[in-house]
Amino acid sequence: MYALMLLPMLAMATEVKSPNGNVVLTFEVKEGRPTYSVTYKGKDVVRPSHLGFELAKDKHATMGLEERDLLAGFELEKEETTSFDETWQPVWGETRDIRNHYNEYAVSLQQQWQEEAKTDEQGRHVAPRAHQRHMTIRFRVYDDGVGFRYEFPRQAELNYFLIKEERSEFAMAGDHKAWWIPGDYDTQEQETQETRLSEIRGRFRDAVNWGNSSVAVFSETGVQTSLQMKTDDGLYINIHEAACLDYATMHLELVDGQTKHMTTKLEGNSNVYTPNPTDMGYPLPQPFTFVSHLTPDATGLKGCMQSPCETPWRTIMVSDDARDMLSSNLILNLNEPCKIDDTSWIHPTKYCGVWWEMIVGKSNWHYTDDYPSIKLGDGAFPNAPSTIVNYQTAKPNGRHAANNEKVKRYIDFAAANGLQQVLVEGWNVGWEDWANMWKRDVFDFVTPYPNFDIKMLNDYAHAKGVKLMMHHETSSSTQNYERHIKDAYELMNKYGYDAVKTGYVGDIIPRGDHHYSQSMNNHYLYVIKEAARHHIMVNSHEATRPTGLCRTYPNLVGGESARGTEYEAFHGNNPDHTCILPFTRLQGGPMDYTPGILETQLDTWSENPHQVGSTLVGQLALYVTMYSPLQMAADLPENYAKYMDAFQFIRDVACDWDDSRYLEAEPGDYITVARKAKGTDNWFIGGKCDEQGHRCNLRLDFLDKGRRYQCTIYQDAKDAHWKTNPKAYVITKKTVKQGDVLRLMEAPGGGFAVSLIAL
Amino acid sequence: MYALMLLPMLAMATEVKSPNGNVVLTFEVKEGRPTYSVTYKGKDVVRPSHLGFELAKDKHATMGLEERDLLAGFELEKEETTSFDETWQPVWGETRDIRNHYNEYAVSLQQQWQEEAKTDEQGRHVAPRAHQRHMTIRFRVYDDGVGFRYEFPRQAELNYFLIKEERSEFAMAGDHKAWWIPGDYDTQEQETQETRLSEIRGRFRDAVNWGNSSVAVFSETGVQTSLQMKTDDGLYINIHEAACLDYATMHLELVDGQTKHMTTKLEGNSNVYTPNPTDMGYPLPQPFTFVSHLTPDATGLKGCMQSPCETPWRTIMVSDDARDMLSSNLILNLNEPCKIDDTSWIHPTKYCGVWWEMIVGKSNWHYTDDYPSIKLGDGAFPNAPSTIVNYQTAKPNGRHAANNEKVKRYIDFAAANGLQQVLVEGWNVGWEDWANMWKRDVFDFVTPYPNFDIKMLNDYAHAKGVKLMMHHETSSSTQNYERHIKDAYELMNKYGYDAVKTGYVGDIIPRGDHHYSQSMNNHYLYVIKEAARHHIMVNSHEATRPTGLCRTYPNLVGGESARGTEYEAFHGNNPDHTCILPFTRLQGGPMDYTPGILETQLDTWSENPHQVGSTLVGQLALYVTMYSPLQMAADLPENYAKYMDAFQFIRDVACDWDDSRYLEAEPGDYITVARKAKGTDNWFIGGKCDEQGHRCNLRLDFLDKGRRYQCTIYQDAKDAHWKTNPKAYVITKKTVKQGDVLRLMEAPGGGFAVSLIAL
Repeated sequence: MYALMLLPMLAMATEVKSPNGNVVLTFEVKEGRPTYSVTYKGKDVVRPSHLGFELAKDKHATMGLEERDLLAGFELEKEETTSFDETWQPVWGETRDIRNHYNEYAVSLQQQWQEEAKTDEQGRHVAPRAHQRHMTIRFRVYDDGVGFRYEFPRQAELNYFLIKEERSEFAMAGDHKAWWIPGDYDTQEQETQETRLSEIRGRFRDAVNWGNSSVAVFSETGVQTSLQMKTDDGLYINIHEAACLDYATMHLELVDGQTKHMTTKLEGNSNVYTPNPTDMGYPLPQPFTFVSHLTPDATGLKGCMQSPCETPWRTIMVSDDARDMLSSNLILNLNEPCKIDDTSWIHPTKYCGVWWEMIVGKSNWHYTDDYPSIKLGDGAFPNAPSTIVNYQTAKPNGRHAANNEKVKRYIDFAAANGLQQVLVEGWNVGWEDWANMWKRDVFDFVTPYPNFDIKMLNDYAHAKGVKLMMHHETSSSTQNYERHIKDAYELMNKYGYDAVKTGYVGDIIPRGDHHYSQSMNNHYLYVIKEAARHHIMVNSHEATRPTGLCRTYPNLVGGESARGTEYEAFHGNNPDHTCILPFTRLQGGPMDYTPGILETQLDTWSENPHQVGSTLVGQLALYVTMYSPLQMAADLPENYAKYMDAFQFIRDVACDWDDSRYLEAEPGDYITVARKAKGTDNWFIGGKCDEQGHRCNLRLDFLDKGRRYQCTIYQDAKDAHWKTNPKAYVITKKTVKQGDVLRLMEAPGGGFAVSLIAL
Repeated sequence: MYALMLLPMLAMATEVKSPNGNVVLTFEVKEGRPTYSVTYKGKDVVRPSHLGFELAKDKHATMGLEERDLLAGFELEKEETTSFDETWQPVWGETRDIRNHYNEYAVSLQQQWQEEAKTDEQGRHVAPRAHQRHMTIRFRVYDDGVGFRYEFPRQAELNYFLIKEERSEFAMAGDHKAWWIPGDYDTQEQETQETRLSEIRGRFRDAVNWGNSSVAVFSETGVQTSLQMKTDDGLYINIHEAACLDYATMHLELVDGQTKHMTTKLEGNSNVYTPNPTDMGYPLPQPFTFVSHLTPDATGLKGCMQSPCETPWRTIMVSDDARDMLSSNLILNLNEPCKIDDTSWIHPTKYCGVWWEMIVGKSNWHYTDDYPSIKLGDGAFPNAPSTIVNYQTAKPNGRHAANNEKVKRYIDFAAANGLQQVLVEGWNVGWEDWANMWKRDVFDFVTPYPNFDIKMLNDYAHAKGVKLMMHHETSSSTQNYERHIKDAYELMNKYGYDAVKTGYVGDIIPRGDHHYSQSMNNHYLYVIKEAARHHIMVNSHEATRPTGLCRTYPNLVGGESARGTEYEAFHGNNPDHTCILPFTRLQGGPMDYTPGILETQLDTWSENPHQVGSTLVGQLALYVTMYSPLQMAADLPENYAKYMDAFQFIRDVACDWDDSRYLEAEPGDYITVARKAKGTDNWFIGGKCDEQGHRCNLRLDFLDKGRRYQCTIYQDAKDAHWKTNPKAYVITKKTVKQGDVLRLMEAPGGGFAVSLIAL
């Protein structure tokens, strides 16, 4: 599959084209600085942009670092161009086959310099010492974009090094429209903003949800990836990263007309100092340039590296068709193949759970109101579940949801409706007192509340063909979770759980660290790997945003890292929210969005005054438009009972696919996609739109020729509206064939859902 | 055993006397500030000193803290005086019985205040809110000193709180002589300084061993505990702490004539801020006052507390006889009784080890020189011992000590000489590349080098009645150690190890944290408890200084936390070093000092140019003068072979005792102690002196009347001198009885050792 060709060593720009020639990468070492640019069909995507790093010096100076960054002074050492074309099969995914087709350009650079000649204390001449460092930049040029990463081969003078900041530039060609959320070290649970690049600074402060418990923004032009943009001449550009493994999550800081300095201040204690002044002595990049900004650890450092090593891939997806943004596999392709030999235990899953009623405020996670605070043991000897609380004698508060009777009802509901699992939150002791207290021993993950009979409930579920889904809220006390993780996973194995939803609410412990730092990203990966060792699937909430690692570790079946459905009960998600997420958050991997809230007006069944920003049918559409192998039917069984005809779609819809066709898409406006259920000839189609509504003429080209399909259409009623009339819907059934056209109307904040069962 | 008496609530000072009346504690709330003082036989020990805390406010303000410290505004709420007298038996120790006899005074204080009346946004009157906080200070008054601690009962308004600084004052009555080392967040491996208090600042910078990899000093008058002092009128005063559990280690900052501000600056990131200005708005304490200074975490915080909770005990030992400083059990008594039910697996141990030859530089911990750096797996799935090194094919460097042949020779040596265990360092992969790189996955604790056959060697040892002792150097990567600890201890159980020497060289990971912070102290305790769960004894090097926890967890059989014998191979310990350590470092628990270097001139057998700061006989004395249940015969078998007659003392000497009598003592000058071996009638006597030499007339009063003893005296030769003639010694044997007098001469830097075997 590889074709190798060594290029002549010329001091001129190298051009590398994508297989179909649409995407062209240009690279050169210009005045000693690595510089690249990207075009698409001849249009500028990334204008000439520098690449490199600022380094920090360690206090021991044991790493042998000179006070010299990896920004300039480079010479070309070697160039290598190869081609690659391979088709692989994911364990689960949107399509059965994924083609990985690119041209690769790996350029090896060296920095060489000589110390000045010296005389020693005895006045003797000391021969000047020569230094040499090596760094490779590897580009992969796809028809739908470019990925590049830095690689550090094993070498004497960059054996260990500390990153003060990565300085990868992405110079945009104009004042593009962007769908962005504030760059933040700890949270992504923000509403997406739709502005021009030049408007980011002015909008920034209002864009931050300061009420979120973990807000840690760093710059008024700092934004998160994946960042979706659209140019005035119709290009869609998306910047993100792939395969972020043991490296800090990247944000982007925009240079705009008001930028005076890049944000480089080192936080933290005195273990590091900065050898270079702010802005590295170079002129600022041109306006509309994004510069990478990594998440620091508690000392302010951005990375502790040991060669041989490489960074994540920095990805630039581009097309003149918005649908290509959604069907692209560029990020998955840039991740390593699956490292788990036996994947037979990994399976897409539809589930319900004891969850939404607590989010809405109708019931509680915690069991008793008797104690102002709780202390749990650290799991070591001698261990007591709690040193100051006796749960056996504590008075139940009567609002604790995860009780035997209720969980059995949810199990019954799952069994009756083809849902494979039941998530139960609040099953374990400690919920009386858990968030934002910088409390280390916050949960032990093995001790159930007195009214949660873990053996009985698992036995009851298994007898009905259902599994319980484990819940491990860590309260971001990762030290505590790692202490308990082996015991916790052994408990899961013992009782037959094979999936865990993890949570990272609140400030990170070890204190001072951030959710998206190198060490925390390492923690999330450690959890995924330790889970794999125990044949456990992971659905990680409040963790770092995904970067396609689910290819390598397909037991990472879901994540959150964005505003999920829970915000509908807080103050609501905008109707266009789910028309943006597939362009942004979902680029790195599936999201456990927990759709399916059919009773959208919460005050009809609870004291919660809020309303879901979607019609009832819009909620059905999400099972198709928001791809995930893990799909929750998030509403309460008693609410589904009111809409059993609509609920039928949730019962029917698949969550693993042989094929997916994005039929229409525009960021923030609408998405229409048809998917073929894995191992069947059945198709499901979803359409979701923003507050404007949408009309869709859906030509069924993709059906098998000559075959007939039982078609059920779930559509907003003519007068439906997400705010004023959300639960008005029409269900139509007919028989269709290839080439038929469905004319579908999506209400403001609505959508549609179609099932096509092969006859 | 308790006698309870409620005192009347008078707004005057309360006096509490020790059982024999020599020590008197006085407490009052003076102008709202808790104030105490201590006298001994009428002399001032601690002049009126304030107690309290500065608090930090958390960024979420979820803890309900007002911007109000725990320093002033207190009223007396309740006083309680009790007496206690109990004799207990340690699992191992200097004496079979320990008497715990004190009078206790517990004073409950409250802060009450009312917010000012407000009007809300609608102009309505808001009733002023009343606040109340409770804090108890508990004093225990012994005949040899005082301990006190702060206690926080469960309460609504101090449920969680953050400590910015503890402000416990210890106002000294004069410009005492002090034996001190620089206050430091990460190391105690410093030479003790002997100066007046007023001279600390001037000596400070020269007192720091800046070459130590972990130096983190904080103030030019900052010193560590245990701090030994002597007053001009002959009082010995020692300040330390007891039962430091999940709390930061305390240092002392001296207010001297030049002090302008206390050191209060918060390091770290912005998760906390300081509600009060420096010095809290109060005048500085008088000169010669020590103020507590806790070790911060990465954010600069000193403590995250959850009530109910208490601080460690702050201890003030006092006597007019220096020997009482050494025989005191005040610190052990202030710790909780043993929490391990079955202690049958805990045993005092004499051992040798593959260690000194690496320290001296004759052989290596690491196996190969083939690789500039090493990467190990994180123990999770899929795990590989190393991702970039193949140890099976790597070329051995020929200097790796922990090889099968050498370890067998050490086992043979141990078996032949009554040593129960053999420590082997450098047995596990990773030593090529381990220190000070801020490398997380530095060791895996389970993978031996190819030339260390873990099963064969343990079988070989067990067949000879010897055990191997495990070694876990963590390189201070505590995150990594905690990930591996269960697997590592299971490996030990599998192969029959029952003791582990842990090490914490280098900077702490999580990065930014310190060796002596609350979270690290919690880590060390977690290790001790996890080890207890696996029936493993712990000998913890470079960890925090001990505070008597070995009473509660007697599997903590040793520690380092001071300059040990290893420094003899670096640049030497001063001859008086071991005449100070029993007054300072050993107050909190035994030290694994690793004595017994008989070949004191290292250049006679290696290329190391250094020399031990002691005579050969002085090394023998340490087995008696430096109490520890864990005693190493640290020299090489081939060196012991040269001095087998002197080595006989190391073979004979016990390491567990029924009785101990301190016969002579003066800090930094000399210590003479006689100990009765556990369960026998045999006595061993050790005398150690500084560079001045010492003459000792030793009257054998403590022997059993009418009994005769075979007495072997190991003495410095007349012309012996630690520097010029260290290995000149005389061994004399005779029979002695009660009342006999031994006239013994200790050479400069020398000592003596005597064994008395009951006939």
